[in-house]
Amino acid sequence: MALTVYADRMSQPSRAIIIFCKVNGIDFEEVRMELNKLQQLTPEFQEINPMMRVPAIVDGRLKLFESHAILIYLACVFPGIADHWYPADLFRRAKIHSVLDWHHSNLRSGAAGYVLNSTRGPALGLPLNPEAAAKSEKLLSASLAKIESVWLKGRGFLTWKHTTFHRRS
Amino acid sequence: MALTVYADRMSQPSRAIIIFCKVNGIDFEEVRMELNKLQQLTPEFQEINPMMRVPAIVDGRLKLFESHAILIYLACVFPGIADHWYPADLFRRAKIHSVLDWHHSNLRSGAAGYVLNSTRGPALGLPLNPEAAAKSEKLLSASLAKIESVWLKGRGFLTWKHTTFHRRS
Repeated sequence: MALTVYADRMSQPSRAIIIFCKVNGIDFEEVRMELNKLQQLTPEFQEINPMMRVPAIVDGRLKLFESHAILIYLACVFPGIADHWYPADLFRRAKIHSVLDWHHSNLRSGAAGYVLNSTRGPALGLPLNPEAAAKSEKLLSASLAKIESVWLKGRGFLTWKHTTFHRRS
Repeated sequence: MALTVYADRMSQPSRAIIIFCKVNGIDFEEVRMELNKLQQLTPEFQEINPMMRVPAIVDGRLKLFESHAILIYLACVFPGIADHWYPADLFRRAKIHSVLDWHHSNLRSGAAGYVLNSTRGPALGLPLNPEAAAKSEKLLSASLAKIESVWLKGRGFLTWKHTTFHRRS
């Protein structure tokens, strides 16, 4: 049975899963969720993810949510995933965990907070909040600067030059 | 050379690292940082962690920040760490990643936002913000409820009954 991915392509973490699968030739069935229609709140979906968020996956007997956890799982269990995505070397792997964790509280928090509070909130039943949007935008800008000054220090691009595309037929 | 842990015990993620080391008998040297005195902003500490946050560790040639990344690293590289902390089984490990990721955006975000905006902000040079505190408290309460209804579903405690204490002499 193929991997099932529950995703709304309006959601950045959902897109991360879909892109990772496509780049790495992982077969999957996409179940399109519409957050605008609150489809993540149905009892059926709560059986998949009790946190009522996308993305989530079902792979055999495993149900899993949280996009970073899903990405790591996919990198570990599917064959032919290039090592640079999730290196076996523990020092390099620790750095991957560090950037993923940093992403939660900085880049993602800033970007999501800004978009929700400045634009997208009402479509999801949430009020706009200009003050919160401004605070998130500040975090987003600082996070983007850290990408330049820390994560890309001494490198041209985040991952491109190390990337080898694998596609299974 | 022993593991060096840069920590402020006022910081929950710092305490997580210290407690993990103590429970698992990992020798470490603690460098006490005082966030109240903005010691994390010094050029010397920026060489350790360019994000200017605690906790951070130095272990031989590795410098690492983000508490969850540190916990996983310690569980992987030190001998005698019981498997339940970071299971070798990929399904169980995926669930650990899922709860750690969830922690960032929910329990931690709610708790830190509440404490900073209601009480601790001024000590760190930040204004109090009752509206933000109320929003964070709501997230914190919802997260605590999820601990009961999701993570502890069918269990008595989070990890205690599976814990074996190891102490090296």
